[in-house]
Amino acid sequence: MSKILLLNGPNLNRLGKREPDVYGTLTLSDIEEKIKSAGQAHGLDVECFQSNHEGQLIDKLHEIEDRGFAGVIFNPGAFTHYSYAIRDAIAAINVPVIEVHISNIHAREEFRSHSVMAPVTEGQIVGLGSAGYELALSVFIGRKEGEN
Amino acid sequence: MSKILLLNGPNLNRLGKREPDVYGTLTLSDIEEKIKSAGQAHGLDVECFQSNHEGQLIDKLHEIEDRGFAGVIFNPGAFTHYSYAIRDAIAAINVPVIEVHISNIHAREEFRSHSVMAPVTEGQIVGLGSAGYELALSVFIGRKEGEN
Amino acid sequence: MSKILLLNGPNLNRLGKREPDVYGTLTLSDIEEKIKSAGQAHGLDVECFQSNHEGQLIDKLHEIEDRGFAGVIFNPGAFTHYSYAIRDAIAAINVPVIEVHISNIHAREEFRSHSVMAPVTEGQIVGLGSAGYELALSVFIGRKEGEN
Amino acid sequence: MSKILLLNGPNLNRLGKREPDVYGTLTLSDIEEKIKSAGQAHGLDVECFQSNHEGQLIDKLHEIEDRGFAGVIFNPGAFTHYSYAIRDAIAAINVPVIEVHISNIHAREEFRSHSVMAPVTEGQIVGLGSAGYELALSVFIGRKEGEN
Amino acid sequence: MSKILLLNGPNLNRLGKREPDVYGTLTLSDIEEKIKSAGQAHGLDVECFQSNHEGQLIDKLHEIEDRGFAGVIFNPGAFTHYSYAIRDAIAAINVPVIEVHISNIHAREEFRSHSVMAPVTEGQIVGLGSAGYELALSVFIGRKEGEN
Amino acid sequence: MSKILLLNGPNLNRLGKREPDVYGTLTLSDIEEKIKSAGQAHGLDVECFQSNHEGQLIDKLHEIEDRGFAGVIFNPGAFTHYSYAIRDAIAAINVPVIEVHISNIHAREEFRSHSVMAPVTEGQIVGLGSAGYELALSVFIGRKEGEN
Amino acid sequence: MSKILLLNGPNLNRLGKREPDVYGTLTLSDIEEKIKSAGQAHGLDVECFQSNHEGQLIDKLHEIEDRGFAGVIFNPGAFTHYSYAIRDAIAAINVPVIEVHISNIHAREEFRSHSVMAPVTEGQIVGLGSAGYELALSVFIGRKEGEN
Amino acid sequence: MSKILLLNGPNLNRLGKREPDVYGTLTLSDIEEKIKSAGQAHGLDVECFQSNHEGQLIDKLHEIEDRGFAGVIFNPGAFTHYSYAIRDAIAAINVPVIEVHISNIHAREEFRSHSVMAPVTEGQIVGLGSAGYELALSVFIGRKEGEN
Amino acid sequence: MSKILLLNGPNLNRLGKREPDVYGTLTLSDIEEKIKSAGQAHGLDVECFQSNHEGQLIDKLHEIEDRGFAGVIFNPGAFTHYSYAIRDAIAAINVPVIEVHISNIHAREEFRSHSVMAPVTEGQIVGLGSAGYELALSVFIGRKEGEN
Amino acid sequence: MSKILLLNGPNLNRLGKREPDVYGTLTLSDIEEKIKSAGQAHGLDVECFQSNHEGQLIDKLHEIEDRGFAGVIFNPGAFTHYSYAIRDAIAAINVPVIEVHISNIHAREEFRSHSVMAPVTEGQIVGLGSAGYELALSVFIGRKEGEN
Amino acid sequence: MSKILLLNGPNLNRLGKREPDVYGTLTLSDIEEKIKSAGQAHGLDVECFQSNHEGQLIDKLHEIEDRGFAGVIFNPGAFTHYSYAIRDAIAAINVPVIEVHISNIHAREEFRSHSVMAPVTEGQIVGLGSAGYELALSVFIGRKEGEN
Amino acid sequence: MSKILLLNGPNLNRLGKREPDVYGTLTLSDIEEKIKSAGQAHGLDVECFQSNHEGQLIDKLHEIEDRGFAGVIFNPGAFTHYSYAIRDAIAAINVPVIEVHISNIHAREEFRSHSVMAPVTEGQIVGLGSAGYELALSVFIGRKEGEN
Repeated sequence: MSKILLLNGPNLNRLGKREPDVYGTLTLSDIEEKIKSAGQAHGLDVECFQSNHEGQLIDKLHEIEDRGFAGVIFNPGAFTHYSYAIRDAIAAINVPVIEVHISNIHAREEFRSHSVMAPVTEGQIVGLGSAGYELALSVFIGRKEGEN
Repeated sequence: MSKILLLNGPNLNRLGKREPDVYGTLTLSDIEEKIKSAGQAHGLDVECFQSNHEGQLIDKLHEIEDRGFAGVIFNPGAFTHYSYAIRDAIAAINVPVIEVHISNIHAREEFRSHSVMAPVTEGQIVGLGSAGYELALSVFIGRKEGEN
Repeated sequence: MSKILLLNGPNLNRLGKREPDVYGTLTLSDIEEKIKSAGQAHGLDVECFQSNHEGQLIDKLHEIEDRGFAGVIFNPGAFTHYSYAIRDAIAAINVPVIEVHISNIHAREEFRSHSVMAPVTEGQIVGLGSAGYELALSVFIGRKEGEN
Repeated sequence: MSKILLLNGPNLNRLGKREPDVYGTLTLSDIEEKIKSAGQAHGLDVECFQSNHEGQLIDKLHEIEDRGFAGVIFNPGAFTHYSYAIRDAIAAINVPVIEVHISNIHAREEFRSHSVMAPVTEGQIVGLGSAGYELALSVFIGRKEGEN
Repeated sequence: MSKILLLNGPNLNRLGKREPDVYGTLTLSDIEEKIKSAGQAHGLDVECFQSNHEGQLIDKLHEIEDRGFAGVIFNPGAFTHYSYAIRDAIAAINVPVIEVHISNIHAREEFRSHSVMAPVTEGQIVGLGSAGYELALSVFIGRKEGEN
Repeated sequence: MSKILLLNGPNLNRLGKREPDVYGTLTLSDIEEKIKSAGQAHGLDVECFQSNHEGQLIDKLHEIEDRGFAGVIFNPGAFTHYSYAIRDAIAAINVPVIEVHISNIHAREEFRSHSVMAPVTEGQIVGLGSAGYELALSVFIGRKEGEN
Repeated sequence: MSKILLLNGPNLNRLGKREPDVYGTLTLSDIEEKIKSAGQAHGLDVECFQSNHEGQLIDKLHEIEDRGFAGVIFNPGAFTHYSYAIRDAIAAINVPVIEVHISNIHAREEFRSHSVMAPVTEGQIVGLGSAGYELALSVFIGRKEGEN
Repeated sequence: MSKILLLNGPNLNRLGKREPDVYGTLTLSDIEEKIKSAGQAHGLDVECFQSNHEGQLIDKLHEIEDRGFAGVIFNPGAFTHYSYAIRDAIAAINVPVIEVHISNIHAREEFRSHSVMAPVTEGQIVGLGSAGYELALSVFIGRKEGEN
Repeated sequence: MSKILLLNGPNLNRLGKREPDVYGTLTLSDIEEKIKSAGQAHGLDVECFQSNHEGQLIDKLHEIEDRGFAGVIFNPGAFTHYSYAIRDAIAAINVPVIEVHISNIHAREEFRSHSVMAPVTEGQIVGLGSAGYELALSVFIGRKEGEN
Repeated sequence: MSKILLLNGPNLNRLGKREPDVYGTLTLSDIEEKIKSAGQAHGLDVECFQSNHEGQLIDKLHEIEDRGFAGVIFNPGAFTHYSYAIRDAIAAINVPVIEVHISNIHAREEFRSHSVMAPVTEGQIVGLGSAGYELALSVFIGRKEGEN
Repeated sequence: MSKILLLNGPNLNRLGKREPDVYGTLTLSDIEEKIKSAGQAHGLDVECFQSNHEGQLIDKLHEIEDRGFAGVIFNPGAFTHYSYAIRDAIAAINVPVIEVHISNIHAREEFRSHSVMAPVTEGQIVGLGSAGYELALSVFIGRKEGEN
Repeated sequence: MSKILLLNGPNLNRLGKREPDVYGTLTLSDIEEKIKSAGQAHGLDVECFQSNHEGQLIDKLHEIEDRGFAGVIFNPGAFTHYSYAIRDAIAAINVPVIEVHISNIHAREEFRSHSVMAPVTEGQIVGLGSAGYELALSVFIGRKEGEN
């Protein structure tokens, strides 16, 4: 069974509590459950991981390459805007990464509209709420089904 | 039946011919057919329009508001980077617009990584090839089904 | 009878519908009628033209020089911020142009506060609502009356 | 009788003497007389004040709010480009201010094309010579007549 | 008895009247009274001065050095952002200056987040309302008590 | 009893050892003891935490919201200048944060004068040595006493 | 017979009338006739097209690739400085394009010295008056003769 | 007898007291006396004026044009870097102005190396201590003697 | 026996696996062994540490000062470009640090050519492959031998 | 017989050896021979000079003005991007200079797209290989023939 | 007898011929003679050197330190704006250098208003024509006389 | 016997005399002797060349390629920061170049931290004093020994 990582960065553990008008009312567990089931329905095993620690996100990216994951759905939170170390981790592994942002980062503070990671990810899904995670998953589902 | 506009900007009529390593080998008609059928399968009537003329894209955006469309899937091509006139047209209508880019615009020339439209669209799907159009459509399908 | 062109750029055909808190509730026809009558009352024949097409605005500017117009009242809409082609058209003709903006462009998004046209127009009237068009007209009326 | 302040900043006391090809040949008194009479003709009492002292301009703006003025016609001269203190004075009072520049500041040195005051004024009239003051007055006349 | 200057720059004479949601409802006299009494209670003689005139603020800073003041609590208002002349006055005297801002200048317009004075003051207290003045005073009280 | 968090970021565990001419000779424990006692004297329970790990600071900020703290006194050290992740943690919690810097960051290297956190904190106290922590505490003491 | 396109952008239809000290006294027809005859003399069929409409220039570039043209001599006028859409059209076709500017764009306003097209054209001829078109033609003549 | 104005801006009244390692130990009176005598020795009447008030410096510049002065030796102090109002006053009068700076402003803080006045003065003498004033005077002496 | 720290930052644990054309085929263990033996041969005890966690690198730098190390050979990986916290740790300790980069960071993406650490390190060795570590070691060997 | 200078700057003596995919396989002598013969065929005496020394290029430009040359064909090599001294030499002589670049400098590194000389040359021919020299020559031939 | 070097950079050998409205009609020899005689009259031996070669100017600066010169009067021409090598030569010698510019470099092209040398010279005399050289000499005369 | 060039740029002939606290007390000859002997000991023939003339450095780089040198150790002095001509010379030859700087250029003036050459050299050794030359040599020794 193919494995997918659903990776969330800093402060996303506060989803549902944190500024609900910006980020919606679903909690992170709600989203993780939804993506897990959706994956399972299409034969994809979704592992979930969230951390506020940059180093743990890097460690995780290294680990899942070694464990042969097929893809990463990644919301890097505020690390999006400055963590060249995570960028290098993405570039260093041979696993495609799709970057997801819940809110429309281009309609907020200036600094949010620049992602240091985008150039080394496969693509980005931005501003479509938590549905963005599902769309990213459907890309990996599409590939898996394309392979069969 | 809900109506959706699939709108493509300059040079996208050359898809399939133009730099296939960047933009893929599907022609615009191939994509339009695919999106139309996918829409129809979920009760959405997809109208397609492509133009190399900024003014025609603006006219079209005005028109479809008057005709009560439910959403726009829009790849503005190179207008993305400077057409504040199209940006104003998007802001001026009450129809949600999802911006789609076939290639990962953040991994190419510097000027391509800035979209003057992004702040007034609902969201963006970038770098996922022509599948990006399908993902955008699935957002509108999801809403339609959510309403029922 | 002296002729004046009232020229409006992209999205101004949506006046009254488009963000009324920013642009007011008068439609473009309302404004055009008002300016026409005001002109007539002082012996000025006001011709009105609106387009979302940059090329048509340029064509019009060329045309009215050939037809001997005495002045242009011009709201270039979003072309204000990037259309060097229209700027060149203004510089290329020997007809004075007064730039008008309905809203206070200096109190909105950063990009709106820069006009690529301003250096080649005669002057600008900004932020005074649709009255701005009337003030511009009164400049041309004043000149006509000064000549008699 | 409604009161209007005609306020002029640094070096405008030299009008007529100073670079007449840029600023015209009318002296400041000529202009003040003209605006006063035009006001009187429409029931507006125009008070005139000029100073080369930033602090006096701020004091005056405070004072006329306390005295219940209906509007300010203000040419801030070179303070336009850096006096955040005057900007704050304008923002601090509840009296509408129309910014006037005699010359087309966008067609001169780079530094002249930026006004730190524009975002907190109601609007700007630029490049139309001393007629700019008259146009600004006509806005206040229009309002007064609208009220009656 | 040690002397302290409470110095306020442009528009701060409008405190209480001016944008109370930003600057609070206390008037400048209220604040001056409060600081004076608090000083007196700890053996510090607080002199108060406010001016909208840059030159008067500079003159005052020079004067109080000659009169042997022990410290200055200074809210430069909008001069904060451009008055290099006041900066030089602060650098020219041997009296420590603490810069105070009532509102959080880093959460407002871009231009407000830069102080040309900060590098030559001893420190800054920002965003804590009129309590900022009291905190600054308590620093000077602490020193005085430390000396005894 | 109200609880306050005294939070210190990277390298502040070296206080007293590290560049004493810049940061003073008090160790972090000295400061923590002082603030704890001062708090206790006014009925505030001060908890102290220092970490060189960005993730641990974020975790702590989340935690103390859940534990109902009344305020945070925070010296983010060098994270001040780039940790948008901590900024988001501050914005994500409903506990007021006062930013403290021991040295005058505006009188040192250019990069130190910009705080990415300042816009979402309540205020900043800068350059007043370790007394800055005490001033911040006195703000929370003032509020507590104001409530009673 | 090989075909070459002589393509001219906005306002170049005003050649001869428009600022003759900058652009010379030849009209566009004069130039087009000259280039046509020069082409014919060397077995090259020169087609001429001018438009003030960005979209028509893009359409034309697409069309001539389909019609097997051997080269394009292109003066994009003011589109030079911002039309990324035309740039993409040039990049999208397999026909070499030589960019021509009549005046020395590096000796005029700042904005004129940057061409967004130059990186995807084969080369540029700048500042040599209408002779620039002839030089560009001679490059294509040289190639044709080299082939024989 | 020809008249020359020796004009000094903000904080220069503190010369001798203020940072003597930067500005030397001569007081302003010392310098003024020296320049006056040197002038008298060559038939030039030197008037001296110093102010910390921008407006007074402007008033003075206007005044001396009316009184027929032959030249101005001007050290604008920190106004050098931002007073466009004084710049305009210099440009508005027909009296040559030589800008003098005592210290080498190019070897100090970044902001000091830019003079907004320099483009409208006749020349600048920088970094040569108070001798700079004497050199400037000798230019006017040279002219006077050249005339005879 | 003198102690030296060989410190490696994020993603350097992937050496040999990660982009071997950029970083070579040696693994980090290979390099660590080599440097350890080389050190031992000259009486230097080399301790090795790698982490993807910024905080652990800071902790380590603090620790080795306390343990009396004689030098640090440090490849900060991507932290080079933004970790002011590590920069402060380097500045806070009295142990010389030599910065090493395997690839020529000046021949890659723009962001890689700026090191926030370089100003507080002793020097940098860049682009010489894993030999860079050996060169850095030889500097410390040279010093040790110089002391004897 | 009219004289023309073919002037080549630094590293152009390596043509043919240096990066042939960028600069072609012709040596500088090949090109010089070609241009000399082409000149002779039309009665123009072409003198050739190449130097890696900025000063020698300046000396040569001065010299040929004194010797009455009719024009200069100049490839300044990398001096293009920073030698304001050569720029001044071009501006100082009354001989027209045409700037030639073999490669398309706008399609290479950022720094190559800016020429400090372009504003004072007559025009530029860029990206057309060594044919660029021939085109430049043909401009001077055209003038010579126009004179006869 | 004290020795002074009068050093002139590129293109200054063309003085009198080169743009006389900018640089005056005196030739360099005229100026050199004048300065030599003026020097001699006060016991200063003035040596003159001009070169268009950056390296020769550096060599000269090194040489005159070895020969014990008392000062340098230096007009670096266009090297002013980019020759960090000459800047380093000035910093490397213990001979005071006064920078002279004939024209007002702040009233010309933007690039001319920045001198990379100014921070390491003693001072600058700008815009006072060839009299600037004489003023610089008088500084050295003043010192010599002060010593006696 | 393999040949290596030790190349030094402007002002490095003053080593030992020039700012010894920045550059050390060794003269250039001392260093050259040291490197020569060290080379000889490992069978490398080191040729030394220093010049203050950019052109001579370029000529030398061309020459040593023709003479089959195996490597260059190059300290470009201040040319580091602007000589694109030398950069092109390095890129034009097939001999590896290692850039050396004696002082830590990242800890000095801003302009020193940017090298226009670094992208085309093999690597850089910075801030390690004259030992930097020895380290560079040891790289070439290592290669030579690796070859045997």
